Amino acid sequence: MSSENLNYFFNPRTIAVIGASRESDKPGHVIFSILLDNKKKGLLKANVYPVNPKAKEILGVKAYPSVKEIEDDVELAIIVVPARIVPKVIKECGEKGVKASIIISAGFSEVGNKELEEEVLKTAKAFNIRIIGPNCIGILSPWSGVDTIFLPVYKRLNDGKLLISTPRPKPGHIALLSQSGAFGTAAIDYMVGEGIGLSIFVSYGNKADVDEADLLEYLIEHERTRVILMYLESIERGRKFIEVARKTSVIKPIIALKAGRTTGGSRAAASHTAALAGLDEVYDAAFRRAGIIRTYDIEELFDVAKALVMLPPTSGGRIGIITDGGGAGVMATDMAELLGLEVPELRGSTREELERLKSNGIIPPFSSVANPIDLTGSATSEMYIETLDVLLRSNEVDIILVLALHQVPGIRDPIDLARKIGKKVKEYNFAKPVLAVDTGYSEAAVLERETFDREGIPSYPIPERAVRAARALYAYGRYLTKRKKFDDYMKKWNPLD
Amino acid sequence: MSSENLNYFFNPRTIAVIGASRESDKPGHVIFSILLDNKKKGLLKANVYPVNPKAKEILGVKAYPSVKEIEDDVELAIIVVPARIVPKVIKECGEKGVKASIIISAGFSEVGNKELEEEVLKTAKAFNIRIIGPNCIGILSPWSGVDTIFLPVYKRLNDGKLLISTPRPKPGHIALLSQSGAFGTAAIDYMVGEGIGLSIFVSYGNKADVDEADLLEYLIEHERTRVILMYLESIERGRKFIEVARKTSVIKPIIALKAGRTTGGSRAAASHTAALAGLDEVYDAAFRRAGIIRTYDIEELFDVAKALVMLPPTSGGRIGIITDGGGAGVMATDMAELLGLEVPELRGSTREELERLKSNGIIPPFSSVANPIDLTGSATSEMYIETLDVLLRSNEVDIILVLALHQVPGIRDPIDLARKIGKKVKEYNFAKPVLAVDTGYSEAAVLERETFDREGIPSYPIPERAVRAARALYAYGRYLTKRKKFDDYMKKWNPLD
Repeated sequence: MSSENLNYFFNPRTIAVIGASRESDKPGHVIFSILLDNKKKGLLKANVYPVNPKAKEILGVKAYPSVKEIEDDVELAIIVVPARIVPKVIKECGEKGVKASIIISAGFSEVGNKELEEEVLKTAKAFNIRIIGPNCIGILSPWSGVDTIFLPVYKRLNDGKLLISTPRPKPGHIALLSQSGAFGTAAIDYMVGEGIGLSIFVSYGNKADVDEADLLEYLIEHERTRVILMYLESIERGRKFIEVARKTSVIKPIIALKAGRTTGGSRAAASHTAALAGLDEVYDAAFRRAGIIRTYDIEELFDVAKALVMLPPTSGGRIGIITDGGGAGVMATDMAELLGLEVPELRGSTREELERLKSNGIIPPFSSVANPIDLTGSATSEMYIETLDVLLRSNEVDIILVLALHQVPGIRDPIDLARKIGKKVKEYNFAKPVLAVDTGYSEAAVLERETFDREGIPSYPIPERAVRAARALYAYGRYLTKRKKFDDYMKKWNPLD
Repeated sequence: MSSENLNYFFNPRTIAVIGASRESDKPGHVIFSILLDNKKKGLLKANVYPVNPKAKEILGVKAYPSVKEIEDDVELAIIVVPARIVPKVIKECGEKGVKASIIISAGFSEVGNKELEEEVLKTAKAFNIRIIGPNCIGILSPWSGVDTIFLPVYKRLNDGKLLISTPRPKPGHIALLSQSGAFGTAAIDYMVGEGIGLSIFVSYGNKADVDEADLLEYLIEHERTRVILMYLESIERGRKFIEVARKTSVIKPIIALKAGRTTGGSRAAASHTAALAGLDEVYDAAFRRAGIIRTYDIEELFDVAKALVMLPPTSGGRIGIITDGGGAGVMATDMAELLGLEVPELRGSTREELERLKSNGIIPPFSSVANPIDLTGSATSEMYIETLDVLLRSNEVDIILVLALHQVPGIRDPIDLARKIGKKVKEYNFAKPVLAVDTGYSEAAVLERETFDREGIPSYPIPERAVRAARALYAYGRYLTKRKKFDDYMKKWNPLD
């Protein structure tokens, strides 16, 4: 097994949906209709053919009784037929020359049918077909339009109303690999809400053939992907996995969420995937060795991903904090120190420059400039820019956290402030990672944060979440330094466009 | 000092705004105009009078040169004049017979002007006037319409557009006391976004007179308030505070967020409030003694508050988890065990009943019923109700966590599911606390959670946050048991209407 031929999954020239159905709530229908839709929108380049021996046509497209009857070459087969038929279908795929197959169907090793799964795998190997699944949700590739998530975007409620239920994220630069389909779809919903873009999502289910290690190997070269997220419950080929992850993690950060940390959690995971979750300490050690950044819930997973996809890492852990709310500054400082970042009391030339801003009346005379720099409720947008400029040039801090609570009267236009901060950071060509916070969910807060994100400054709704993300930038920077790859990484780094 | 006369702040019959201004961006204008608006809407019962020696009328209302000239009795004076004039103004208030005064003005002990603050206090005491502030944001009382938050609801951007900037929460049953005004306004914005109702907000600034202890004492009897939140940076009268908190905490839960936990954080807090934050361990001990539940960020503060305001506490820590996503179940189990809750493997009659549901085909044959109860991606709304019914009757669990990821096809109508779960819990008259999770921010997720909340089931967007809230119900239940007040509390407990 390796990453050989994996590209057929993500960028196929032709797709057959075997088990495409005419009944609108069947997975085989949902998948075919979404692919057809993506094709019509011009998003999907591949030709799509439905295979169903009982149908003449599906959604106006001619249906084939077997994949072998399709008059075109078929590169990717998506299989949505009952488990017992899968061996026969895979054999036909082999005879047709199919290169890759996503087996959505369940009813294999996860319910004890190991022989059936082995039979399918043996046939696939004989014909050199790569398999994702079985028992999986498959792939979502927003860049190429491949989408096998059999959950429709909308749900029709009992009263007839349509509700957005499983929206798809916008194209982006974060890849998500998930052992659990349910976690994957929940995570996708979360990404849409947070406005985070996706490069590739793969739910690989029983991983009969393609597993985490293969996918990591593929993603090293995947141009759209800058950061790789993994949801894991168990890892089998541990040595291989660590080896590939170690190779990948100096090129692209890998962030993992590993469930089953406690005795109860492991029991739950075991009953869920029929795989031994294993001792949590073992995973901790493996992650460390592989250079994988570990997170502990879905919120932290994406908070950290957002920082790593947008910002350069840092080899120093000194954080400078600018705020217009004393309390927010205190909370950020607490969290930073608890997580092993330093909030140095500013001295030397940085302090002198800040004191000069004070005596020149550029920032309020009662500001605190020790760090956190508290501009107080009298803060204005101009004060933020002047102070930020000092910190961007300072050799006393490595990371900058801007807490810009929009409520203070002096921030007349919070959107404009976010834009100006973005401009300032670009002026310095992202010399230091800068993260931002505005608290709450009012229109002003949401728009200020959206503007920060658009400007390349990852933003968060509470200080603590921003600090956790900042810590990851430092952890990754230290890791690259230890591996002597920091300079290589930075040479290739550029801001998202 | 005590809670004497505090009701004049929250339910005054007449209000004078001293320093009411005609310039629309001045705090004295914003406060007066909001009060006038609330009066017009019928929300505020009090008469409102502007005091400004340089104006004949403000917003069409006759202005008075001094509070003494007002032809009506004045109960509450809101003071928004420069610090140096405040002593004179307070004296006039005394002569007028004013009962309570909110001094918004800054420039007192927080910038070293201790004498000025003492002068004001002395005069106030001589006339028996209670003071909130100085250097504060004051009060927001959504039930009575008193609102001294001098930040307007809208901000006008540079391009002329109006943006909601400081919205006010709906009336509710959570009180918020904040030493920091900035934290308070950020928290209020957060509450609006999370749809959490407010009973009373007080930002008490320098607490020259009214302090935390007085406010707690007042809130014991405050009918609308069921849960009390506090944001603290320092406490002075520690013994008095603990004594009052200890009295309060067996009647209403108190949840605190104390900033300044670390060396850096304490330094930041000290520079912010000019008060010594003190050793964190001392606060920990004080909170324990006072029965205060401690939280560590704004998210946790409100997550816990939401559970405690809606649900009864529990004296047992065994949690039963129902899920349609294996991964979510594993993560909830992990978090529960890490926080000291038990996720017992179900046995005995509960297990038998669940096995019967399985063999009768009511839940899928491949469900896991050990706990978490994993209904799998084949879950339907009916399965949730049947399983929940078993757990509500079970003597093996004390708390129930329902993870109802809406994406699965069998949950045809997530809103209907939330309603049915609410109905079932009410059938059992909230015999056990039930919390719910749906992940993500799609329309379906948001509406499912809103419906849960409306039905009296607090809901959360990730399992971990729900588990933290569940743990607080247990912590509070244990505390009440230790104080021998559990039964008293439960006797008075009733669901929110």
